[in-house]
Amino acid sequence: MNFRVRAATKEDCKDISRMITELAVYENMPDQVEISHKELERDGFCQNPFFQCLVAEVPEEQKSKEGFTVVGYALYFYTYSTWRGRSVYLEDLYVMPEFRGNGMGKGLLCKVAEVGKKEECVRLQLSVLDWNTPSRDFYAAKGAQDLTVSEGWHFIRFDGQNLDNLANEAPKD
Amino acid sequence: MNFRVRAATKEDCKDISRMITELAVYENMPDQVEISHKELERDGFCQNPFFQCLVAEVPEEQKSKEGFTVVGYALYFYTYSTWRGRSVYLEDLYVMPEFRGNGMGKGLLCKVAEVGKKEECVRLQLSVLDWNTPSRDFYAAKGAQDLTVSEGWHFIRFDGQNLDNLANEAPKD
Repeated sequence: MNFRVRAATKEDCKDISRMITELAVYENMPDQVEISHKELERDGFCQNPFFQCLVAEVPEEQKSKEGFTVVGYALYFYTYSTWRGRSVYLEDLYVMPEFRGNGMGKGLLCKVAEVGKKEECVRLQLSVLDWNTPSRDFYAAKGAQDLTVSEGWHFIRFDGQNLDNLANEAPKD
Repeated sequence: MNFRVRAATKEDCKDISRMITELAVYENMPDQVEISHKELERDGFCQNPFFQCLVAEVPEEQKSKEGFTVVGYALYFYTYSTWRGRSVYLEDLYVMPEFRGNGMGKGLLCKVAEVGKKEECVRLQLSVLDWNTPSRDFYAAKGAQDLTVSEGWHFIRFDGQNLDNLANEAPKD
């Protein structure tokens, strides 16, 4: 199957938004998606964008059953290690089910690695759910370390009222 | 004890670099630090900085035994949730041992939350090692969720030759 991996444009945000919802359905959490293509357009295509995105695109004659040609995406951003420096973090990697098994997921992942290397990043990081064995196996086969298993790193989150409480207790300038 | 939390400047990078090493010693991994104040100056104080930093500063008359007045730091950057949007990620939070117990760590954390809220972030996230009970208890007491425990998120990393291999397999444009 022919496909091309390219940088997303503002015009891709409706396709990306559609696939974000499809991925949330796969992760059994469809009601968690609260942002639309409008927030993606605002946050990804401003002067200091909060994220970067690649899309996988097929030719018109290979479009999906519903008529889509943008059939996969990789959304990422830059982070920083105070030990090693610049890193790239892959937030989402998704390929529509009918296009899987064609190297598109690997193509997106490798392209993020290539872009990261060009920016002098020394790490590519991501998170995966423990029950998602296909993804965990895929990353492990490519040489990834599971730092939660090997070093004991846990993910911590403040949101909602807890985040507001912290902000309200900030020292005054 | 009087202290002030303020945005770091380029001139603070030597102090930040010193404290990054002190934190790595606490985490039992001192030989992991490969970046110096020069990389911090380059990556944190450019046009699209890879990180932001706050420092905690005490008056001259309360300086540390070795003569330091910049005695704590919080290094963070912006990330993005495709479900909820803008987030802030706290990479490092550190206060020198002789200045602990004075609310400085909490002050730094709350200031990051405040800065994040001003940027319309809906989450503050961070990672913690499973054996670091004082930190885990501190975050839990402030309402943080441990997503590794509650949802099963694992941290995955590619680096070194594995990252090079991915980049080398990227599809051609």
